[in-house]
Amino acid sequence: MEKSFEKRDLTKKSENIADWYNDVILRAKLCSYSDVKGSIVIRPYGYAVWENSQKILDTMFKSDGVENCYFPMLIPMSFIQKEKEHIEGFAPELFTIDRIGEEKLVDPLVLRPTSETIMYKTFADWIQGHRDLPIKVNQWCNIFRAEKRTYPFLRTSEFLWQEGHTAFANNEDNLQMVFRALNWYKDFYEKYMAIVPYIGIKSQSEKFAGAKNTYTVEIVCPNGKALQACTSHDLSDHFAKAFDVSFLNEKGEKTFVHQSSFGLSTRCIGALVLVHGDDLGLIMPPAIAPIQVVILPIIKKTETDQEVLDFAKIVETKLKEIGIKTVVDNDDTHSLGYKINEWELKGVPLRIEIGSKELENKIIKAVRRDDFSKQDISIEGFETKIQNILNEIQKDLFEKSLKMRNDKTKNADSYDEFKKNIEEGNIVRAHWCENPECEKRIKEETSATVRCLEFDKMNTTEEGKCIYCGKDSKHKWLFGKSY
Amino acid sequence: MEKSFEKRDLTKKSENIADWYNDVILRAKLCSYSDVKGSIVIRPYGYAVWENSQKILDTMFKSDGVENCYFPMLIPMSFIQKEKEHIEGFAPELFTIDRIGEEKLVDPLVLRPTSETIMYKTFADWIQGHRDLPIKVNQWCNIFRAEKRTYPFLRTSEFLWQEGHTAFANNEDNLQMVFRALNWYKDFYEKYMAIVPYIGIKSQSEKFAGAKNTYTVEIVCPNGKALQACTSHDLSDHFAKAFDVSFLNEKGEKTFVHQSSFGLSTRCIGALVLVHGDDLGLIMPPAIAPIQVVILPIIKKTETDQEVLDFAKIVETKLKEIGIKTVVDNDDTHSLGYKINEWELKGVPLRIEIGSKELENKIIKAVRRDDFSKQDISIEGFETKIQNILNEIQKDLFEKSLKMRNDKTKNADSYDEFKKNIEEGNIVRAHWCENPECEKRIKEETSATVRCLEFDKMNTTEEGKCIYCGKDSKHKWLFGKSY
Repeated sequence: MEKSFEKRDLTKKSENIADWYNDVILRAKLCSYSDVKGSIVIRPYGYAVWENSQKILDTMFKSDGVENCYFPMLIPMSFIQKEKEHIEGFAPELFTIDRIGEEKLVDPLVLRPTSETIMYKTFADWIQGHRDLPIKVNQWCNIFRAEKRTYPFLRTSEFLWQEGHTAFANNEDNLQMVFRALNWYKDFYEKYMAIVPYIGIKSQSEKFAGAKNTYTVEIVCPNGKALQACTSHDLSDHFAKAFDVSFLNEKGEKTFVHQSSFGLSTRCIGALVLVHGDDLGLIMPPAIAPIQVVILPIIKKTETDQEVLDFAKIVETKLKEIGIKTVVDNDDTHSLGYKINEWELKGVPLRIEIGSKELENKIIKAVRRDDFSKQDISIEGFETKIQNILNEIQKDLFEKSLKMRNDKTKNADSYDEFKKNIEEGNIVRAHWCENPECEKRIKEETSATVRCLEFDKMNTTEEGKCIYCGKDSKHKWLFGKSY
Repeated sequence: MEKSFEKRDLTKKSENIADWYNDVILRAKLCSYSDVKGSIVIRPYGYAVWENSQKILDTMFKSDGVENCYFPMLIPMSFIQKEKEHIEGFAPELFTIDRIGEEKLVDPLVLRPTSETIMYKTFADWIQGHRDLPIKVNQWCNIFRAEKRTYPFLRTSEFLWQEGHTAFANNEDNLQMVFRALNWYKDFYEKYMAIVPYIGIKSQSEKFAGAKNTYTVEIVCPNGKALQACTSHDLSDHFAKAFDVSFLNEKGEKTFVHQSSFGLSTRCIGALVLVHGDDLGLIMPPAIAPIQVVILPIIKKTETDQEVLDFAKIVETKLKEIGIKTVVDNDDTHSLGYKINEWELKGVPLRIEIGSKELENKIIKAVRRDDFSKQDISIEGFETKIQNILNEIQKDLFEKSLKMRNDKTKNADSYDEFKKNIEEGNIVRAHWCENPECEKRIKEETSATVRCLEFDKMNTTEEGKCIYCGKDSKHKWLFGKSY
């Protein structure tokens, strides 16, 4: 009664990316649907991508002295209400507990939509003098934001993330932290996920509720939609004032701390699928892949079978010795073709086939998942060659994603050109006067929102006219429909 | 305005272990109290112990093919109600969500008190044939069980844990899993935490709600109380029948799976504090310590200060090179005495002092936290000597905890003797006929509960008479007051 998979059952990515996405995440066993509205089950193969992400980011955080901790998930409603913009932004998404057992709560509890309020209430206790600063903590946890329309990994009512939270004695140190976090995220996506995002600042209407400014990592998807892939917020002293997070400076004066927060969620798994996958399934960049190499011994019920299996075992051992995540698929209840389909679906970057021919010639056959190119590799020092191929795959996926991003980004000098490009499924770079009214109308008329002003354009001025109202504009911003 | 700490402020462990415990966990910065009833903030130093525990256990799990995953935290009430004993056991402790925003829920959601129900509902979808078995998954997550009286780490309404969940085609394989998990826990406590627990089976009235049998790791605390430190459950086919988790066996017959679940929580941090700490604060066994060695350079505002600091830096580097977690405390705003107190409070297993005398004689002074013994160590190959001292500390703490456990365990042949030993703060080993009525009365009259029947006594019979009713008994069980 096993669930069979055949290539022809999978929706083509190029034909319908939404259906393809749903097909591929379920069939590759990244997740299962859940009976709980808005939630998914993250299966071991999907969770392994998250664990790899955690290791990479945790190492970055710790190298900077950011320490992990854990704060309560239940937050008193009265805390959430303390920062005015914060509650306005999060109110519609809150899960609320009014009672425990039969006991009615005077101050209802909400499931954390983010932890600024509960953390900074405690920071106020921790901080007395300037010697208690800076504080740099992070937690890996679950988050709840009620969503009406959900997409696995991309938008669910419960998701997993990390949230870093800091407090500094002055604005300069705080801003450096904001950009340091942003840079970790850029490295994470570029070096590990092989995705080249746009990095920039959000418009005031799109920033985090309660922040002074939000810096964002925006990924361009193959359908031309933008995905906000993670964010780093300059909270300035907004929450510090709401929660009285202050210290006595060296002159003995009460001073509010400057704060930042930064978060990256399991949404990154969805980004990985969308950007790299193809009509046959996932394509995992080697640097994030739970399995980097799969070895398929070709068994033909002949006397050399055992030798082939032994050979496969040796190849596995040697690859593992140099740290390559390798699996041997010895399952003899399925055909080779079926097994190849399954491993392609799962996006394992490199497949090695070993049969009697390879055994005889002391070679292995390596097949790349991304471009299906095949090569026979002599067993002499093959490990280094495999490592090199994996490095090449990583590099090629990076280049491909950069090209896709650039191809999908168009410049527009008029509103007509803007609308045409958005309709055709692109991210559009265009002059905007920074008036929220224009932003609102553009959104109403085209469904496109302001994604960001690119980081490298922030400190220079490019004179022009707003594509909507024609008034003076100092920058071209990126616009796009969002996930 | 810094918070000062002086030894004399700390309650003595021997005088009032409850007050001492609260003092030491706060002052050593393992946790902070939270404004949310029943919850605590796990601070970086406490969380680092949890991270070390996670690494140790995760390696054990993965070596056996147990894979990490993540299931929704919100569980429909109707799921929890499916297994009769399960809902009876958990009903009083449930946090319930009746509405999201203004929308009233027909089937209320509960915050997971444990995940058997939501996981096995999905296992039923995953399992079609025997080839889909076994399933062995684990998740690291937060758990909610409303508690009236709470103690940080030991009993809180929200806590962190791992929960392993498995499904096997037959009972034998399942039982082996139950015992394998139990053995991991035993190793974790003995080899890393340096705590020697009792391992055994729970009485029927003390088992997990829904299990056939619960196997437990029970720690004896210095005040003679027992702490259930983690558990491994044989769920048999109880949940499989409730959620129709079945497969077609090789004969094509519908067969229910056999299941186990096993969990260990942040309670282990409380156990660590209680068992090893002394009047001066925590004592961390080196194998679990976030910081294994602290180096204190002795600065005297003289010309050799820089050389002393350089020497300390070299010592740090060499220790880190062989994997010893080392910190240099260069803070020059506090006296040496103050700093020694603080590091003793934090329980760092070994302190190294380096001053001009040590510099001159090319030695370092090492002071053990557990017994305060001091030795001067020649700089020649000192790293190995430090590693050896850490190993000795680990061994000595293990021996000390074993002796404490044995000293605090008394045998009783009569109910009078039983009551006297319980009152005097001991764990008592005594004959019990296994009648729940005797168990209930003993609890009512002495507050002592059945902790377990020791594993090595399960398969042998020791004839005797129940200390309560005088009827025939086959085993001596362990009784004690519990945390």
